[in-house]
Amino acid sequence: MSIYSQLKQRVLEANLQLPKYGLVTFTWGNVSEFDRTNGVIAIKPSGVEYCDMTAEDMVVVDLEGNIVEGKLNPSSDTATHLELYKAFPEVSGIVHTHSRSATIWAQAGIDIPALGTTHADYFYGDIPCTRRLSHSEIAEEYEKNTGLVIIEEFKQRRIDPMAVPSVIVAGHAPFSWGKDANDAVHNAVVLEEVSAMALATRSLNSGIKIQPELSDKHYLRKHGENAYYGQQ
Amino acid sequence: MSIYSQLKQRVLEANLQLPKYGLVTFTWGNVSEFDRTNGVIAIKPSGVEYCDMTAEDMVVVDLEGNIVEGKLNPSSDTATHLELYKAFPEVSGIVHTHSRSATIWAQAGIDIPALGTTHADYFYGDIPCTRRLSHSEIAEEYEKNTGLVIIEEFKQRRIDPMAVPSVIVAGHAPFSWGKDANDAVHNAVVLEEVSAMALATRSLNSGIKIQPELSDKHYLRKHGENAYYGQQ
Amino acid sequence: MSIYSQLKQRVLEANLQLPKYGLVTFTWGNVSEFDRTNGVIAIKPSGVEYCDMTAEDMVVVDLEGNIVEGKLNPSSDTATHLELYKAFPEVSGIVHTHSRSATIWAQAGIDIPALGTTHADYFYGDIPCTRRLSHSEIAEEYEKNTGLVIIEEFKQRRIDPMAVPSVIVAGHAPFSWGKDANDAVHNAVVLEEVSAMALATRSLNSGIKIQPELSDKHYLRKHGENAYYGQQ
Amino acid sequence: MSIYSQLKQRVLEANLQLPKYGLVTFTWGNVSEFDRTNGVIAIKPSGVEYCDMTAEDMVVVDLEGNIVEGKLNPSSDTATHLELYKAFPEVSGIVHTHSRSATIWAQAGIDIPALGTTHADYFYGDIPCTRRLSHSEIAEEYEKNTGLVIIEEFKQRRIDPMAVPSVIVAGHAPFSWGKDANDAVHNAVVLEEVSAMALATRSLNSGIKIQPELSDKHYLRKHGENAYYGQQ
Repeated sequence: MSIYSQLKQRVLEANLQLPKYGLVTFTWGNVSEFDRTNGVIAIKPSGVEYCDMTAEDMVVVDLEGNIVEGKLNPSSDTATHLELYKAFPEVSGIVHTHSRSATIWAQAGIDIPALGTTHADYFYGDIPCTRRLSHSEIAEEYEKNTGLVIIEEFKQRRIDPMAVPSVIVAGHAPFSWGKDANDAVHNAVVLEEVSAMALATRSLNSGIKIQPELSDKHYLRKHGENAYYGQQ
Repeated sequence: MSIYSQLKQRVLEANLQLPKYGLVTFTWGNVSEFDRTNGVIAIKPSGVEYCDMTAEDMVVVDLEGNIVEGKLNPSSDTATHLELYKAFPEVSGIVHTHSRSATIWAQAGIDIPALGTTHADYFYGDIPCTRRLSHSEIAEEYEKNTGLVIIEEFKQRRIDPMAVPSVIVAGHAPFSWGKDANDAVHNAVVLEEVSAMALATRSLNSGIKIQPELSDKHYLRKHGENAYYGQQ
Repeated sequence: MSIYSQLKQRVLEANLQLPKYGLVTFTWGNVSEFDRTNGVIAIKPSGVEYCDMTAEDMVVVDLEGNIVEGKLNPSSDTATHLELYKAFPEVSGIVHTHSRSATIWAQAGIDIPALGTTHADYFYGDIPCTRRLSHSEIAEEYEKNTGLVIIEEFKQRRIDPMAVPSVIVAGHAPFSWGKDANDAVHNAVVLEEVSAMALATRSLNSGIKIQPELSDKHYLRKHGENAYYGQQ
Repeated sequence: MSIYSQLKQRVLEANLQLPKYGLVTFTWGNVSEFDRTNGVIAIKPSGVEYCDMTAEDMVVVDLEGNIVEGKLNPSSDTATHLELYKAFPEVSGIVHTHSRSATIWAQAGIDIPALGTTHADYFYGDIPCTRRLSHSEIAEEYEKNTGLVIIEEFKQRRIDPMAVPSVIVAGHAPFSWGKDANDAVHNAVVLEEVSAMALATRSLNSGIKIQPELSDKHYLRKHGENAYYGQQ
């Protein structure tokens, strides 16, 4: 029995949510969770079919990417996850997908605009699209640099990653995160839905934006000390 | 055995129609029914997963929102439902969702135009989009004010809520209603379908409208004393 | 045992294809078949749920719409079916739906253009949109006049209804037909698919049309005496 | 026991993937695999329903299209498959569908542009749309000429068919291929997904293209001797 059994089970289950919610085709997409107490991350193996995966297939790595436990190669996007965990101390779950509507915004290279309360319930403002990576950032340590470019975007725009728990990488696709793997996937599902809504909203009314006070209201109704949504 | 068992069962079943018809993601959306004889409303609890809900989880409140029966918090949108029941005497079922296509029109802030007989079979004219709430309407008693803004829109435009049993709230999402919870959900399904059709119709032919006489014909074929659709 | 048992069973099965192929919401849509030997038509009853229907619920009417067998009211669109059967001697199955993409073209009031071989495999040229009905055509005998306007469109444009086995009625929705009920539903499925493809094709390339010789080739590959598709 | 039993079983299974992934309606679409050792191709029979097909129904033909084994007619598109196998020596699996989004680009007559890494992971550059066939190419040996026009397009543009394993035929629909039948279907699924993404990306940002260095990186991360994706 591994001491990481529960961690790996949670990461397996979060990965299996991806096909359930229609966020992935084939083996695209990966979820990880960071056990901050033990300093290890469990992540999906690279290129393995969802229907065949077991908890034992999850790969446990340390913050430098060294394999601590597991027989398979970790996701090729592992280095991106590691950079985000290092830079965002409240994040302990990360998911990467190529979900259709969010990827469309990423390919277009445009921030996903906050246009309604569905967005405001989860994201406090627009969801940023990163700048393009430079030639040298792509050539060497590409996956690590993808993480660094995300972090740069949040720092320069002074966005709290817990208030906007998703990003789209220009020309690529989204990353979402949360307090654990399950929470990250939850945010990825919402990201896809608001991305689809925003596409058609802008085609109906190209200049529309949400009222800032409505965005505040909905976000704070569900988050922070005065939240009153749900059973908390 | 609660005297509200049947009411709660009907409300449970109407809520379970929402995921069945693809109108909700996660716990978004809520359905209520007003038992006008006993002066109580049964409504979905806040933030509870559909797959876990039982009839016992439904919350029974009075018209002032006081809990009459139930251990959970009622939907955070309860105050909106209460205002609509108070103002619209023929309405005894209400549903709120963030269904994709109707929400797109709400986010765009544009009435859903009557463009064909699918719409006219259920809605007698355009489906109104409310005005935006003011800063103070959002800051205090937001959910109650959402109801009041809906009522204001129907009064000012002189729309009979039974002839147009849906509204979209600007920047937010739709509410639908009917003579009971099941009827409200039925109208919410139709609303989503006509919203999707209207989006693409307007992109093909931006100035098109339904002929008024065709709208009359289809609405009156299914409603009122000369209706001849179905087995009545 | 009714002498129409087999006819009613075929019509039931054809009606049940509509929800299977995603062409209907609720009770919308109806299929009929004309037994030309006995001069009777079996058609779906009005407003009955698909999941509850049995072959016994199918209503058998004569060409004047008199009920020959059955306890329920026939579809409210029966008069449209009857006119088409009277005018189109090779048609023995008809289906009416409000399938989303075909209805979008009907609402826009625009012919569905032949843009590719998917269309050409089944429809020899554009699928016509009728003119709008006049005020008096709507006020009196609306369903019968819907049929007459369809027939007028095919006659004026000299379209063979077996070569273009569908129409869209302006502001309303499509009708499809074929040599029996099952064939009519088959054509309705194709109509919906080519309608969806045409919507996006025109948004990418607004002036595009299929090459006439390619249309000829694909249509004649599947139809007529030199057909070589399938196992015939 | 036929010596082609395994080949036919693989081709059956690859064909059954088409309805599973939503790439076909009715009997549209066909998959073949070329057994280069024995010089025979197994292909789906023409016009047979997927739900009824068995491995025994697969038709085995030689490179000239003569039936080697099987009681049914081979797909009417067999001659296209044969030309591609003759011209592309690394291709041993081919699939033809009318999948919706790829067909939309084919009907529009526009290359599917490389707009993101989802595309770059599988296709090294834009996916070409062929020229239109001439009148005489359509009139005589149409299916064979469809293959020849595809080959012409790859030769003139100097595209390696293994680096861009799909094409769209103008006014018609896509063909995809790979090292075997299963690989060809895999590419057909990806083609449909990137086609859908590209449609909406271009409507958001009409001039956007992927960075060439990002395209290189993603393609080479999964293909060639320095690939590091998956468990190889």
